[in-house]
Amino acid sequence: MEKGIENLFYRRSELGFTLSLARSGLRPAQFEALAAETKAAHSEMQRLEAGEIKNPDEDRRVTHFSDRAAYPGTELFTDVEDFFADVRRGKIAGSTGKPFDALIVNGIGGSALGPQLVQFAINGPYWNELSREQRRGGLRVYFTDNTDAAGLADILAVVDLETTLTVSISKSGGTRETRNNMAALESVYAAAGLGFAGHAAAVTMPGSRLDAYAKERGWLKVWPLAESIGGRTSETAIVGHVPASAGGIGFRALLRGACLMDEWTRAPEALSNPAYMLAAAWFLLGNGKGDRNMVIVPYADRLVLLSRYLQQLVMESLGKELDLDGKVVEQGLTVYGNKGGTDAHAYIQQLQDGRNDFFITFIEVLRDARQFELERGLNMGDYLHNFLEGLANALAAKKRSVIRITLDELNEESLGLIIALYERAVAFYAELIQINAFHQPGVEAYKKTSEAINELSIKLQEFIAANSGFSGEAAAFAAAAGEPELVAEIEGILAKFTVNERVFGGKSLRRTLEDGRWRYAVE
Amino acid sequence: MEKGIENLFYRRSELGFTLSLARSGLRPAQFEALAAETKAAHSEMQRLEAGEIKNPDEDRRVTHFSDRAAYPGTELFTDVEDFFADVRRGKIAGSTGKPFDALIVNGIGGSALGPQLVQFAINGPYWNELSREQRRGGLRVYFTDNTDAAGLADILAVVDLETTLTVSISKSGGTRETRNNMAALESVYAAAGLGFAGHAAAVTMPGSRLDAYAKERGWLKVWPLAESIGGRTSETAIVGHVPASAGGIGFRALLRGACLMDEWTRAPEALSNPAYMLAAAWFLLGNGKGDRNMVIVPYADRLVLLSRYLQQLVMESLGKELDLDGKVVEQGLTVYGNKGGTDAHAYIQQLQDGRNDFFITFIEVLRDARQFELERGLNMGDYLHNFLEGLANALAAKKRSVIRITLDELNEESLGLIIALYERAVAFYAELIQINAFHQPGVEAYKKTSEAINELSIKLQEFIAANSGFSGEAAAFAAAAGEPELVAEIEGILAKFTVNERVFGGKSLRRTLEDGRWRYAVE
Repeated sequence: MEKGIENLFYRRSELGFTLSLARSGLRPAQFEALAAETKAAHSEMQRLEAGEIKNPDEDRRVTHFSDRAAYPGTELFTDVEDFFADVRRGKIAGSTGKPFDALIVNGIGGSALGPQLVQFAINGPYWNELSREQRRGGLRVYFTDNTDAAGLADILAVVDLETTLTVSISKSGGTRETRNNMAALESVYAAAGLGFAGHAAAVTMPGSRLDAYAKERGWLKVWPLAESIGGRTSETAIVGHVPASAGGIGFRALLRGACLMDEWTRAPEALSNPAYMLAAAWFLLGNGKGDRNMVIVPYADRLVLLSRYLQQLVMESLGKELDLDGKVVEQGLTVYGNKGGTDAHAYIQQLQDGRNDFFITFIEVLRDARQFELERGLNMGDYLHNFLEGLANALAAKKRSVIRITLDELNEESLGLIIALYERAVAFYAELIQINAFHQPGVEAYKKTSEAINELSIKLQEFIAANSGFSGEAAAFAAAAGEPELVAEIEGILAKFTVNERVFGGKSLRRTLEDGRWRYAVE
Repeated sequence: MEKGIENLFYRRSELGFTLSLARSGLRPAQFEALAAETKAAHSEMQRLEAGEIKNPDEDRRVTHFSDRAAYPGTELFTDVEDFFADVRRGKIAGSTGKPFDALIVNGIGGSALGPQLVQFAINGPYWNELSREQRRGGLRVYFTDNTDAAGLADILAVVDLETTLTVSISKSGGTRETRNNMAALESVYAAAGLGFAGHAAAVTMPGSRLDAYAKERGWLKVWPLAESIGGRTSETAIVGHVPASAGGIGFRALLRGACLMDEWTRAPEALSNPAYMLAAAWFLLGNGKGDRNMVIVPYADRLVLLSRYLQQLVMESLGKELDLDGKVVEQGLTVYGNKGGTDAHAYIQQLQDGRNDFFITFIEVLRDARQFELERGLNMGDYLHNFLEGLANALAAKKRSVIRITLDELNEESLGLIIALYERAVAFYAELIQINAFHQPGVEAYKKTSEAINELSIKLQEFIAANSGFSGEAAAFAAAAGEPELVAEIEGILAKFTVNERVFGGKSLRRTLEDGRWRYAVE
């Protein structure tokens, strides 16, 4: 093995962790040429961990790396563990005294993606179909992460309200989707003659609207989330802990894995620090501008949600208009992928033969869940490994960049390791490109435009209620309602009302298509 | 509304279908400038539908568009419907006489993604948790789509072998992952003292290896798949029909929707043909080279798998090295996305503020599954609509390209409509860029390199069995086994064997990390 390639490995005997850039097409000299940038970024990482303000726009410290080391020793940690131990033994039960059997995790974005990843990876895709014995008393776990009525209705078809606990997770306490699901669940409980408070808990910042609401109503529990921990980096804090504990997942082991990676990634040199090595590779492969998509392909069915989790972590952190000096840079790093070898039968054709606009990261888990023996001494898992190796070779032969991460097993500890690796790589990459990784101004912009549509929707309801017999195209409604600039928006709202047969003040809408344009009539 | 923008709509009263490019940034003149290319591509589409050879490399006709119109009237269609009617009433039962309650769909890529999409969209995420009454006798449906032992083991934890039917779907009949799962299931049945044949059916090309195997063993059923229907366009054929019928999904309605779109998309002009309009937009927005990623965001929880389905359909069809003249073009069109509004709390930050390297397609379903009323007359679904509208506005204000598709409801018919729309847009786009959309040579390349790794794996098993006491780094094994060029590959196989405690001829491997390098010893 040539020395140069050998240096682009990082291996540890703990958990069998290996990061390999051997087939990335990169050479050690390229990392060495980044020494000055690495040094500067490393010093910023040290400032971050020392508790200095690293989210200047929001004037906040960023403490998810440091807080998790201390977390298992805190009263909060014990309180969560005790709570779910009491739930398991029925000491804490629903409002009618029946023991809890299911948890609805009500949260979106950073309050859902991490818990979903961990639940799926550790408890598997069919956890909710296992018997209580198979679950060792752990709760079934459902996620409602949107304001789509179908999502909640689908859950309500399979849970028993009396034995269900809902945890609403919202850092700000004002996230609209989460509030909507909470309000809908409250009304469902009320309609069933049950008190929602006896089935509700919350995770939120102390002093938030949700905090006050839950305490006023006497919810079973309100757990605090620190202001200095952002949603997309909250999996190793209370946000990840509560759903994991409900499902019987060993959160202490997950934290142990994360903290191990934190230790490994305090080394100053890129090639002896896996997070820096990974981030520097992203930087080099994408010309410091994300010019290549990051394809994430775990060779493990239970890690199929990893790419979705990393999509948020990477893109929401790094997709920024301005750098730290306020210069327009339009940065970003696009993430997609599902799982291997399955994806090889889907889009890998393009990666192998088509646009060379990506680098791929394979995450391999060596331990097979079970030995299914097949022909010639090869078993099911051998094929999985050999397909991965074959694909990596085929891609490298076509000069596509391949990064590989290997783990002995998939468990809480190794999952914590991977989460921390990517968190730290993202933070370091942000320093290399000089942006704030810890805010999300674009999301705020969209929330404002959406609020304007909500107001327009309310205005139209009033217009419909008051204008029996009015008819015309959306433009006519727009003119009559005094919003002539908002024809397209009004068209959308009228269509939504019509299809759902909404009634306002006794009036509803009828719709017909004439010459390719919709006409609406208030009836 | 200005005339130019108005022309970039396509609306039908059937199913409330609307395709809108109003906020794509494109203008009608750009489509008009493509008139010659459109005409040429249209004539190729006509040749395709007339049954001429359109997959020249494989010398095949391409008949998925035309076959589906006739399919409901065929004996094959009736046979599938009758089979599952008999399953539902227990007339066809498992080997011990118990009625079937669950189906394992054993297939990968085109044999899995379509059925998964349809199952999730129509029956919802928790179908398998519903009671038999709630399922109206439909079978629970599981998918095994990989050679990961965890995937199959997870299914085996929740199904009862006696009441489970497995359908193996492989066009060629030789797909390794599918064969592995079949073989593993056979051995699991044998170990339980049950005959697999009484629990097995297949979908494959007549004359294939799987066809012969299943018939020899007297499987319950073998359904034929036509040679002229490719895996990724087989959802409206037998491949989609069997799993759908098992789950009680109305496949006739799905075909009706697909055929309706087929009719609409035989019009020659881009602006009066939604498939051409969509494909031309992809062409214009990505400079005919896929320079922008296609982000697919359905505002419907049950459509979360749509992007994964389209990822295959688009990328495997369009990601090609050579054009029809054999010139190297390295084409492609990258697809990713999950669902809205959820994604707005994940990666939309980057789309809004960061790299402008994409166009986004929103697919809206107007009908709410249920009316959850909230404050001020707005209900859960109003918020979903208003968030979509708000995001579309915010993105357009930043000069990001937005495409919108709207449907009144999500049902079998509208799902068929969408599947056909994208199938036809892909076929047309392939004509615009002059490539063969119907083969996948890159996948073949990777299968070959993987076979070489399988042989190496078998060679190493023999080496281990014969060399007790041998120890050293992977390089030493490589030299001793006579494969000095394959150090990295041997390293991977040794690691896989070690972690799984594999024993060959009574010998196993022990591994230690020394100076950052693994050493292996045969013991």
